[in-house]
Amino acid sequence: MADRITPRAQDYSQWYLDVVKQAGLADHAEGVKGCMVIKPTGYAIWERMQRALDGMFKATGHVNAYFPLFIPKSFLSKEAQHVEGFAKECAVVTHYRLKASPDGKGVIVDPEAKLEQELIVRPTSETIIWNTYRDWIQSYRDLPLLINQWANVVRWEMRTRLFLRTAEFLWQEGHTAHATEQEARDEALRMLEVYRRFAEEWMAMPVLVGPKSDGQKFPGAVITYCIEAMMQDGKALQAGTSHFLGQNFAKAFDCQFTNEQGQREYAWATSWGVSTRLIGGLIMTHSDDNGLVVPPRLAATHVVIVPLGKTEQERQPILAAAEQLAQQLRDRPREEFFGYEPIAVKVDTMFDKQIGYRAAEYEVRGVPVRVEIGPKDFEKQSCVVARRDRPGKEGKEFGVPLATAADHIVQTLRDMQRSLFEKARAFRDAHIRTANSYAEFKELIEQPGFIAAHWDGTRQTEDRIAEETKATIRCLPFDQPDEPGVCMVSGQPSPRRVIFARAY
Amino acid sequence: MADRITPRAQDYSQWYLDVVKQAGLADHAEGVKGCMVIKPTGYAIWERMQRALDGMFKATGHVNAYFPLFIPKSFLSKEAQHVEGFAKECAVVTHYRLKASPDGKGVIVDPEAKLEQELIVRPTSETIIWNTYRDWIQSYRDLPLLINQWANVVRWEMRTRLFLRTAEFLWQEGHTAHATEQEARDEALRMLEVYRRFAEEWMAMPVLVGPKSDGQKFPGAVITYCIEAMMQDGKALQAGTSHFLGQNFAKAFDCQFTNEQGQREYAWATSWGVSTRLIGGLIMTHSDDNGLVVPPRLAATHVVIVPLGKTEQERQPILAAAEQLAQQLRDRPREEFFGYEPIAVKVDTMFDKQIGYRAAEYEVRGVPVRVEIGPKDFEKQSCVVARRDRPGKEGKEFGVPLATAADHIVQTLRDMQRSLFEKARAFRDAHIRTANSYAEFKELIEQPGFIAAHWDGTRQTEDRIAEETKATIRCLPFDQPDEPGVCMVSGQPSPRRVIFARAY
Repeated sequence: MADRITPRAQDYSQWYLDVVKQAGLADHAEGVKGCMVIKPTGYAIWERMQRALDGMFKATGHVNAYFPLFIPKSFLSKEAQHVEGFAKECAVVTHYRLKASPDGKGVIVDPEAKLEQELIVRPTSETIIWNTYRDWIQSYRDLPLLINQWANVVRWEMRTRLFLRTAEFLWQEGHTAHATEQEARDEALRMLEVYRRFAEEWMAMPVLVGPKSDGQKFPGAVITYCIEAMMQDGKALQAGTSHFLGQNFAKAFDCQFTNEQGQREYAWATSWGVSTRLIGGLIMTHSDDNGLVVPPRLAATHVVIVPLGKTEQERQPILAAAEQLAQQLRDRPREEFFGYEPIAVKVDTMFDKQIGYRAAEYEVRGVPVRVEIGPKDFEKQSCVVARRDRPGKEGKEFGVPLATAADHIVQTLRDMQRSLFEKARAFRDAHIRTANSYAEFKELIEQPGFIAAHWDGTRQTEDRIAEETKATIRCLPFDQPDEPGVCMVSGQPSPRRVIFARAY
Repeated sequence: MADRITPRAQDYSQWYLDVVKQAGLADHAEGVKGCMVIKPTGYAIWERMQRALDGMFKATGHVNAYFPLFIPKSFLSKEAQHVEGFAKECAVVTHYRLKASPDGKGVIVDPEAKLEQELIVRPTSETIIWNTYRDWIQSYRDLPLLINQWANVVRWEMRTRLFLRTAEFLWQEGHTAHATEQEARDEALRMLEVYRRFAEEWMAMPVLVGPKSDGQKFPGAVITYCIEAMMQDGKALQAGTSHFLGQNFAKAFDCQFTNEQGQREYAWATSWGVSTRLIGGLIMTHSDDNGLVVPPRLAATHVVIVPLGKTEQERQPILAAAEQLAQQLRDRPREEFFGYEPIAVKVDTMFDKQIGYRAAEYEVRGVPVRVEIGPKDFEKQSCVVARRDRPGKEGKEFGVPLATAADHIVQTLRDMQRSLFEKARAFRDAHIRTANSYAEFKELIEQPGFIAAHWDGTRQTEDRIAEETKATIRCLPFDQPDEPGVCMVSGQPSPRRVIFARAY
C-alpha cells in the first residue's frame, strides 16, 4: 500500500501530494484553475475543526453572521494599504447574464448585461463588513460587536498547492468592533490564544506565538499576531493570524459612535482567521511514509474494528463481537475530548481481502486506532489494539480483553493525542538553531528548521535577508528571552532574537 | 414595541419585512444589489437548522464534501434543459486582476487579465459535481456516492425579498450517484421524507408532499418532488425539493461505470436541497403582530429569565435565583429534542427599563419562553412562565415553584413545539378548498389558500391557468385520494385533484 506514497526523504513535495491523494482528502478541480475539490475524508477533518473552533468562539462571547460574497470594487479602494494588498489578484464579476450563442453552440456572455460597477469575489471581508457596521454602530451601547463568519474566499493564486494555497478556500473570519483601543488590543490577543489552544490541544501542532514584523503584517493592520508552526521538512507554516486594526477601517468607512462622554469617536477593530490551510499543516506535522496520521480529536473515524476469520462460520461470532464493541464505543456519554460528538467507529467487512491490505487501507487514511479480532484472539475473548502513530509491532497491544476494550481504546486515543503533540514539539525544538552572523545564517538556512537571530527591526534589513536567502521573519515570539545583541546584517542593536525561516 | 410592526391584516408584505428587521434577522446589503446580510439572530436559526439537517443526512448515510464556487461556462451548456434554466441570470467572472487607475483614483479592471473561458458563480452544482464524479466512479463498487455540500449559491434575481429570494443565498445540495434506477428513485424519496420530517418536527411547519407537475420541475430532472407549505396569507412556499435526475447528468458528463455484469452503464442520479429560504417560511408560518415566533427546537435562545426589583438590595437575591435557574437549565443532560446542544438561556439585566419594555424586547425577537421573577414571586419562591405563542395573560402560568421550574420550562418548550405545529396544520387544512369549475376556481383563487382541483395533466392547461390566474400547480400530493373527475379547463379526464396556489 505504502508504495503508492513517495517517501519523505526522497521528495517531500511529492510525498505531501501522495498523502493528500491516497488518503482521499482533496483533488485539483478540473476546468477551474487553482481551485480544489475537498473530498469527504478531507472535509470531515474540516468539519471537526469547525466544530471545535466554533465552540471556542462562542465560549468567548462571539456569534456568527453572514455577509455577501461580492464586494463593490470601490469598497476595496477605501483603505489604502488594504487595496494594495488585495486588489491585485482577485476574481472580478463584470456581467450578470449569459445568452444562447448566435451559432447555436453553447452560451456566451450577454454584452447587454454589464454591471455598472464591477463586483469582487471577497478575498477577505473587512471592507464590506465595516461598511455594514457603520449602520449598526451608533452608540457605545452597541459595542462591542463580536462577530464571526464561516465562508469561502477567493484569491487568484498562480502557483497553487492543495490546502496550502488555492484560489478558493474555506475559512472563518472574525470581525470585532470596540469602544476603546485597549479592548480591541485585548480581543486580538484573546483570539490569538484561542488559535494557540486549538492548534496545540486539537491539532497537536505546537506553535510559536507573537507578532509579525511590519513586513509580514496584514494589509490594513496596525499589528498582526500569528501562530507559526514547523512542518516536518523544517519549513514554516503561518497557521492563523489575529489583527489589531486600530481605527483604520472605521475611518475608511466613516464608522463613528457616541462614546460615554457623548463625543463622536471612530470604533476600534480586530479581525482574525484560520482556513482549510490548517489541513495542510495537520498533514505535514504528523503524517508519515505510510500515509495520513490524524490526531484523534480531529479524526473523522476514530476507530476501525477489523474482524478476521477464514470461513463464514468462523467469522460470524467474531463479527458480532466487533459490532458489540463498536456499539459500546458509540454509546459512551458524549465528552469534551471528542467535541461532544459520539466516537466514530467503523467495522470493516472486507473479508475477501488479506489482513495486510485491510490494515494498510486504514493506515493510509489515518484512522487513529485499529482493532483486530482474529479467531485466536476471540477464543481468549481478547483483541489487538494498534496505534496509527506507531506503525508495526511496536504500536500493537496484544491480548486486550474484549470486556474492557472500550475503556482501553479511549485511553489509547487520549495517549496518542498527547504523544503526537510531544513528538512534534520535540522535533520543532530540535530544529530551532541560533545564528550569530549573517554568514552562519546563510549556511544554516540551507538546512531544515527555524533560525533565531538578531535583527535591527527595519524593513530594509528584513527585505534584504528575504531577497538574499528566501527566508522571512516568521514571528517575534512572546516567550523569546531578552538577550541584547546586534543585528547580524547591519550591526545595529537588537533587544532579542526573532525567528526566521523559509515558509509555505 | 409592537407598533414598530405593521399588522398582518393591514399589509402582509410590510409585516414580513418589519418582523425581519425588528427581530434583527437580516438586512439588505448596501452596494450589492439583491444580496443580504444575515444578522446574528437570523444566522443562529440557520445554524440550528443546519445542525439538525446535517444530523439527519448523516443518519441516512451521507457525507459532506466541497466543490468549487466557479463553474466553467462550457459545463453549463452540456445538459440542454439545465442551461436553459440556469444560464440566464448568473454572475459571470471575466477577469482575475485589478490595477491602479491611471488617474490615481481607485482601481480598475486590468484588461490584460481576461480569463480564456469565463467562469460562472454556481447557481447549483450538478454540472461541476458530475464532471468530478466521472473520475470517481469506475465500477459499481464505487457506488453509491452519497454526498452533500453546504454552500453559497448565486442566482441573479431582479426582484428580491429577504430570505425568500436573494441573489446570493446559503443552502445544502445533496448529489448522489447510484448503480440502479430503482436505488436512485428510492434515494430521492428518502431525502424528501427527511425534508418532511425536518419541516414538521423541527420547524413545526406542516407540508404537502409529492411530485411537481412537469411545468414546475427542476431543469434537468426526470421528476421533482417537493415539500410545499402554506404561509399565513394563504400563499404557497416551496420549502424543499428532491430530484430524480435519471441518467441525464451522467450522459452529459460521460460518467459511466462497469456494472456487476461487466457492462458499461451510465450512473443514476439524484439531487436535493433546502436553503435559507426556510427562514422566510419559518417566519411566515408562526410569527404574529408582536414579532417573531420561533419553534423551540430552532430557537437561538430558548429561555430568557427576567428578574425584577426596584432597589439593588431587592434585586440581588432575585438575580441570584435567576442565575441559578439558568444554570440548572444549561446543565441538563443533552437531549435529542434540543439537537444535543445545551439549552440556551439568557438572564436579562436591563433593570433600568420597564418590565413592559423588557418583555416586548424578547417577544419581538421570538424567545419561546420568558420567565419573570418579581419580589412577590420570590417571596413565595416561585416564578411566572410566559409562552411566546400565547401572548398576554392567557399564555402566563403563575406561581410555578422555583424548585421545579426547570422541568416545567422544558415541558412548556415541548408543548409549544407541538402546539405550533397543530395550529399551523389546522390553519392550513382550513384553507384548502375544492373548485369544481374554472369559474369557481377563478373566484376562490382571489381568497387566501390552496385549491384542490382536477387537471388534465398537460403543460398547455397548466400554462394557461398560470397565465390567467397567476396560480401554479404546487404539488401532486401523495395522500390526495383517488377521485376520478374532469379537468376544470379542458374537460379531459383526471384521476385525482392536484393543488393549485399563488406562490412565493
